[in-house]
Amino acid sequence: MDKFKRNERIAAMTKVLTSAPNRIFTLSHFCEMFGAAKSTVSEDVAILAETLRTFQMGTLETVTGAAGGMRYRPLVQSGEGRALMEKIVAMLKDSSRVLPGGFLYFSDILSDPQLVSGMGHIFAAEYYDAGIDFVLTMETKGIPVALMTAEALHVPLIIARRSSKVYEGSAVNINYVSGKGGIETMSLSRRAVREGSKALIVDDFMRGGGTARGMLSLLEEFNCKCVGMRFVMALENPARRMNENEKSLMVMDEIVDGEPVSIRVSDWVK
Amino acid sequence: MDKFKRNERIAAMTKVLTSAPNRIFTLSHFCEMFGAAKSTVSEDVAILAETLRTFQMGTLETVTGAAGGMRYRPLVQSGEGRALMEKIVAMLKDSSRVLPGGFLYFSDILSDPQLVSGMGHIFAAEYYDAGIDFVLTMETKGIPVALMTAEALHVPLIIARRSSKVYEGSAVNINYVSGKGGIETMSLSRRAVREGSKALIVDDFMRGGGTARGMLSLLEEFNCKCVGMRFVMALENPARRMNENEKSLMVMDEIVDGEPVSIRVSDWVK
Repeated sequence: MDKFKRNERIAAMTKVLTSAPNRIFTLSHFCEMFGAAKSTVSEDVAILAETLRTFQMGTLETVTGAAGGMRYRPLVQSGEGRALMEKIVAMLKDSSRVLPGGFLYFSDILSDPQLVSGMGHIFAAEYYDAGIDFVLTMETKGIPVALMTAEALHVPLIIARRSSKVYEGSAVNINYVSGKGGIETMSLSRRAVREGSKALIVDDFMRGGGTARGMLSLLEEFNCKCVGMRFVMALENPARRMNENEKSLMVMDEIVDGEPVSIRVSDWVK
Repeated sequence: MDKFKRNERIAAMTKVLTSAPNRIFTLSHFCEMFGAAKSTVSEDVAILAETLRTFQMGTLETVTGAAGGMRYRPLVQSGEGRALMEKIVAMLKDSSRVLPGGFLYFSDILSDPQLVSGMGHIFAAEYYDAGIDFVLTMETKGIPVALMTAEALHVPLIIARRSSKVYEGSAVNINYVSGKGGIETMSLSRRAVREGSKALIVDDFMRGGGTARGMLSLLEEFNCKCVGMRFVMALENPARRMNENEKSLMVMDEIVDGEPVSIRVSDWVK
């Protein structure tokens, strides 16, 4: 007789797999955990995969080969990503969010765990098979959404700083032209990045593109490839495009002082 | 006949509950989701609660009353928190991490999604019933662990900045004495914080305590109560204690240049 019932095995397996996205677990891992035969656990896996599909809760994939097993990916299902972003746009349309100087207050949204987790899953969804080594962001506001993207992809997050810090060790510094036209510095710890690896850039806002260009320069210094750039928000202006694989979840027009902001969800968000 | 099998209901329920920690879901929510009777779903809940307990995967609690239902809490089980921290201490004991000036490199650990998630769960575990309104951190390095703590508690994260920013709106600025003896500024957006609410402070490092004192002053400006302060690392020096409810996961001695660092897991971590 089996030590645990199918119900119990499936509950435990759901917890293990869904809380470690994109990580491969072997069948043997669960056989040992439950003291059950491979055939039994295989059936459990099939039931779980089908259930996740039915309820649109992401996908459970079987990976074949020597390093094979199964892995969970919190794929954002059709309609789910768009629904989240429409909700955020509705929150942003509150006119009290327009600040003097034509700035939009959305720091609260950028550090709400549930919202950034949802946005991170949208970003990650396109990159599960891209062999990304790390997510790169520039301090400060993009850190939460970048962290959640990294968690879903099961890769580290690396944070570029505005200046080199003593506790980061030797660093590569570059200068870049900020949106306001000034020269600013961006710094990345030498030991944080492996030469020649692949990065996904995630940040909160693409205004003039200066910060984004700075991050690209930094990656070049490490001979790293940027496979894509993802932003929570971008100004409506396709001329500023600097990477063929550059997208934002939302697009806004320049704010004219005091006027209501025009913000919309980007078309690619499903 | 029920629309879904017990296996399927339990798998879906596990996913919903464990991915939204500390959030209350009503029984009706699942009855509608599955098209099943309350008695049926109640039995599912009982099985799931028992299974999570058996596998030490956190707790599923039933909340009674008008706003009742059930909620999942990723309680760190006895031994689990300590095992995680011992693993991190082992990583930190690599002598190549000691930087010139007696600093320790641990930025990589502070932005590793899995490690910060585990540390956040240890912090959250003590505060599930404390009625916390938000987690407060100071930019930059503590943001990931503070975000994961906030996610587990199902509250927002609020980030204090080194200076007030145009896109944060009006802000309260305070000055504080940094560890190096200089005067620094800390800023918190007015609209981010509700007067009189309760905060848990989470940060990466407690050295001289200047930053921590700064955050306490900021909270006072908003008439907010600090229910506790949690740090990933602190220097061994109880004289610096500034809040009766102040703890760190790890303790280290002052680094003498080039000498191996003495780091240990704090006794309270189980």
